[in-house]
Amino acid sequence: MHMPIVAFLGLGAIGTPMARHLARVDWGLRVWNRTAVRASEFATKHAAHGVTHATTPAAAARGADVVITCFPVSSDVESLLDGPDGVLAGLARGATLVDCTSGDPATSKRIAARLAERGVGYLDAPVSGGVLGAEGGTLTVMVGGDSATLEKVRPVLEAFGKKIVHCGAIGTGDAVKAVNNALLAMHLWSTAEGLATLTSAGVDPAVALDVINTSSGRSNASMNLFPERVLTRAFPRTFRLALLDKDVGIAAQVAREQRIPSPLIQLTAELYQAAHRALGEEADHVEVVKWVEQLTGTVIEKR
Amino acid sequence: MHMPIVAFLGLGAIGTPMARHLARVDWGLRVWNRTAVRASEFATKHAAHGVTHATTPAAAARGADVVITCFPVSSDVESLLDGPDGVLAGLARGATLVDCTSGDPATSKRIAARLAERGVGYLDAPVSGGVLGAEGGTLTVMVGGDSATLEKVRPVLEAFGKKIVHCGAIGTGDAVKAVNNALLAMHLWSTAEGLATLTSAGVDPAVALDVINTSSGRSNASMNLFPERVLTRAFPRTFRLALLDKDVGIAAQVAREQRIPSPLIQLTAELYQAAHRALGEEADHVEVVKWVEQLTGTVIEKR
Amino acid sequence: MHMPIVAFLGLGAIGTPMARHLARVDWGLRVWNRTAVRASEFATKHAAHGVTHATTPAAAARGADVVITCFPVSSDVESLLDGPDGVLAGLARGATLVDCTSGDPATSKRIAARLAERGVGYLDAPVSGGVLGAEGGTLTVMVGGDSATLEKVRPVLEAFGKKIVHCGAIGTGDAVKAVNNALLAMHLWSTAEGLATLTSAGVDPAVALDVINTSSGRSNASMNLFPERVLTRAFPRTFRLALLDKDVGIAAQVAREQRIPSPLIQLTAELYQAAHRALGEEADHVEVVKWVEQLTGTVIEKR
Amino acid sequence: MHMPIVAFLGLGAIGTPMARHLARVDWGLRVWNRTAVRASEFATKHAAHGVTHATTPAAAARGADVVITCFPVSSDVESLLDGPDGVLAGLARGATLVDCTSGDPATSKRIAARLAERGVGYLDAPVSGGVLGAEGGTLTVMVGGDSATLEKVRPVLEAFGKKIVHCGAIGTGDAVKAVNNALLAMHLWSTAEGLATLTSAGVDPAVALDVINTSSGRSNASMNLFPERVLTRAFPRTFRLALLDKDVGIAAQVAREQRIPSPLIQLTAELYQAAHRALGEEADHVEVVKWVEQLTGTVIEKR
Repeated sequence: MHMPIVAFLGLGAIGTPMARHLARVDWGLRVWNRTAVRASEFATKHAAHGVTHATTPAAAARGADVVITCFPVSSDVESLLDGPDGVLAGLARGATLVDCTSGDPATSKRIAARLAERGVGYLDAPVSGGVLGAEGGTLTVMVGGDSATLEKVRPVLEAFGKKIVHCGAIGTGDAVKAVNNALLAMHLWSTAEGLATLTSAGVDPAVALDVINTSSGRSNASMNLFPERVLTRAFPRTFRLALLDKDVGIAAQVAREQRIPSPLIQLTAELYQAAHRALGEEADHVEVVKWVEQLTGTVIEKR
Repeated sequence: MHMPIVAFLGLGAIGTPMARHLARVDWGLRVWNRTAVRASEFATKHAAHGVTHATTPAAAARGADVVITCFPVSSDVESLLDGPDGVLAGLARGATLVDCTSGDPATSKRIAARLAERGVGYLDAPVSGGVLGAEGGTLTVMVGGDSATLEKVRPVLEAFGKKIVHCGAIGTGDAVKAVNNALLAMHLWSTAEGLATLTSAGVDPAVALDVINTSSGRSNASMNLFPERVLTRAFPRTFRLALLDKDVGIAAQVAREQRIPSPLIQLTAELYQAAHRALGEEADHVEVVKWVEQLTGTVIEKR
Repeated sequence: MHMPIVAFLGLGAIGTPMARHLARVDWGLRVWNRTAVRASEFATKHAAHGVTHATTPAAAARGADVVITCFPVSSDVESLLDGPDGVLAGLARGATLVDCTSGDPATSKRIAARLAERGVGYLDAPVSGGVLGAEGGTLTVMVGGDSATLEKVRPVLEAFGKKIVHCGAIGTGDAVKAVNNALLAMHLWSTAEGLATLTSAGVDPAVALDVINTSSGRSNASMNLFPERVLTRAFPRTFRLALLDKDVGIAAQVAREQRIPSPLIQLTAELYQAAHRALGEEADHVEVVKWVEQLTGTVIEKR
Repeated sequence: MHMPIVAFLGLGAIGTPMARHLARVDWGLRVWNRTAVRASEFATKHAAHGVTHATTPAAAARGADVVITCFPVSSDVESLLDGPDGVLAGLARGATLVDCTSGDPATSKRIAARLAERGVGYLDAPVSGGVLGAEGGTLTVMVGGDSATLEKVRPVLEAFGKKIVHCGAIGTGDAVKAVNNALLAMHLWSTAEGLATLTSAGVDPAVALDVINTSSGRSNASMNLFPERVLTRAFPRTFRLALLDKDVGIAAQVAREQRIPSPLIQLTAELYQAAHRALGEEADHVEVVKWVEQLTGTVIEKR
């Protein structure tokens, strides 16, 4: 592979540090962002590496070997495809679109089919690791799509990803990411129910967590999120509940499409939908615990 | 505290190695077991440490400072209290009964009340750590009851427990243990649902687990039980599903008594009840995954 | 049976019209109520029929052949048994206590056991039909207990009950009543979910109900409660949500005791517990629909 | 409207008696069926009314004013549209396709959009009333689509429908039907759980049903299906569980699309999916009770 030309669309909280890693490789990165000032500032800041600011998705994609997209939801990507300024207007045969959005498999398959008609490859490639992982270049990248396509773009993905995992056909990267996040959502809620119960029964939740975290009931939620964010009442806003709700919904939809009876996933999808509606668009995902507290009349804080 | 005389009732898979640790302290341990031969063999084996075999619970308790019970369910303990051979017939004022059964708070409170009438102390003190923890003397002991009573018997508990945690009033040790195990049960099932979904969507569950276990959806179930027992199809029998079902039921009951809306715990209690009925008394707890597989028409094995 | 002497304890919304029917039979009815003025007024009003006001439960029970209790919950009845003024102090061997409370089987069995020690019979005999049925003397009475005991008191029950159904052993009257009310609770909620969905999809809920009520999805809830109370936004307060929550909880508990996997009953118990907490003690049971509306962002009203 | 020419596609258990009513109006009915012999026999039998047998969907649709489709699922209809023999090849501008399938709104909208491009109208018009209603010409028809289109074809619908209800825009007929059937599914299951609990507690389920059916917990399921089909163990095969599962799935999907938290509908969808998988394609919908019996270890039969 010659030195690829890379375009990056979507300079959000995760996308920006990802793009920063790409910039450092001197790939002649072009960036585009809906709020244009973020892209122009990014380009200015990384001008020494030859980063430029594209004014339209089409301009970013034109001549690029790899176009990376990173948005809140799949429909954001789909909506950038068409029109004279759209990605499709710029993409050349042989290019690859790598969608790092935590997307849904159905939309990914639709996008892939449209690109395939034009001889453009597609990978769904959502990432996990959060802002810290993006900044450290240590993201896990879950890839769905053709393995030959993956090998072609692997060096690009390695700029920001420490672990690149080929999950299967198109949509499976999305599916794995959605299931992982659904597990996070379930464990957050299950631990909240358990600690609300114990708190109400007179147990200090810090004591209960201390036991659980050396026992069989522990999870990432109990080991990290509850001690650092709930007991302390810190609830920093790092990942929106709205997006976790969306992810659980994707996992629930995949399970339905696969005809997999999945009562816990489906019930969790309902609980998050209700919590999201109750807490609004800006709440952090861990704030779902506050809704459990409200429903149960408890406060899960250190005594 | 003078060198206490200790009695141990219930030489099961967990109780036997716990008693072994007590024997080593030369406390003049007396042991009793429903199947008497296990107790007599144990006494013979540890005769050098002065261990003796009691033929009745009353005989074991007579003159003992601390009586430790370790049975499958609280009602086993309750049923040993009465009659001429019962624990109550032997226990002296000032003694303490420490129940290491994974019990239910309601029964623990009833037992404690009956003992209190006779001036006998009570602690519910279920343990976690499994057979390995019992053999290594590294159990976590969750204690409910009076803290002065706990301090009195702490040296005895330290013979087998590495971490002794005072949870609160009588019944809270049981409650913490039940909630921990309910979390284990939920995470086992949630991970099974997620992996069944991904398997059906064409993802190798080993690949999915590899991603989840470096991401936010990980839990003790996903990190240990699935790789070692499910993907390998080993399903060793270490902890019966019947007992985990019982534990989830206790957590569900505590939540109901506390009037804590807890949809995930309650639904999990139903799922385990159904699985327990379908798989029988001897199935291991991780075999619940086989029932999820049956319901979903999948097999979660390495490709 | 000679003309029996009857005592009635609990002159609430249902109890008062029930007692009125008993008064008319000239049985020398004695009435007692916690708020004494209600009982004295009742006695004054029905003095022509020989009704008298007892100042204590013991006085009401003394010499009575049949003591009828009618309270919100079983523990109310249990709390009236003891002490110098308690029912037990007045009840004579051979008498029968008929508890028309919508009670729970466990408490009923405890009460029955205590009465049996004194040679007093017991029936759990909750009623359905509401205030209108009580006023019309057309209640359905669900009876648990010995059939010989039932036959002895049947003439008394027929004063207010049109349909007297022997359900089985002690506690089964309570169980049947609880399950009936749990079905009501489930159908109320299921219909609310369905109509919220259709309303959100642009269907007039009155049109949807019109179809459902001539189709297979109809229930008492859809045929009566939604057209009369929800679409009209009338929400009259006839039966407290707090009591329906209690009833679903009893049904859920019986299912658990019987080891019957029952995901819909158990989940409904959680939903009502949460709704009860959110809407408070005075809300009517049909107002649970308002909580569904709040969770779903809809209003189920005629367009 | 001149005397319309009507085509009928899909001579199944419901479609055949519907077509019979249309035949009687001497509309020059054309019928088509995948298994051709059913259509040719139907045409022969009703030849006196001018009924003819079309050998392809295109032939049936050619020149027809109204094409009625009646299939198990929407995708059956969608699959008949294309190709030289497809419905689209025959349909003329100004015609109307009335889909009496119990379909899903998303597919209905896709079909409607394709027809609209050709100037062909579309109504989703699922029916309720079962085989008996179809034979008696007393079906309820739930119509989604333009009201002018409905008025144009109303005389045709009145040949088999007693109650024609305009529900709203395209897809709302499907949605109302799906929600009705989801309510049926929920009430079947809820009543099964309740009766399994009572049976296990020693109550004759016939006695319990007798009470429930005069009380607030009654539903179509408890009043008709349980007495006639379950207690008698008759379980006649009138409506396949596979189709009810599909309907609950549609209701669940509509709720998700509308972002309506609906825990009971979603959990019911999972339970029916599992039951469908366990009982197979031929089981009747009421046989779901047999699966509840299996899960709970009970038999709901008259004693």
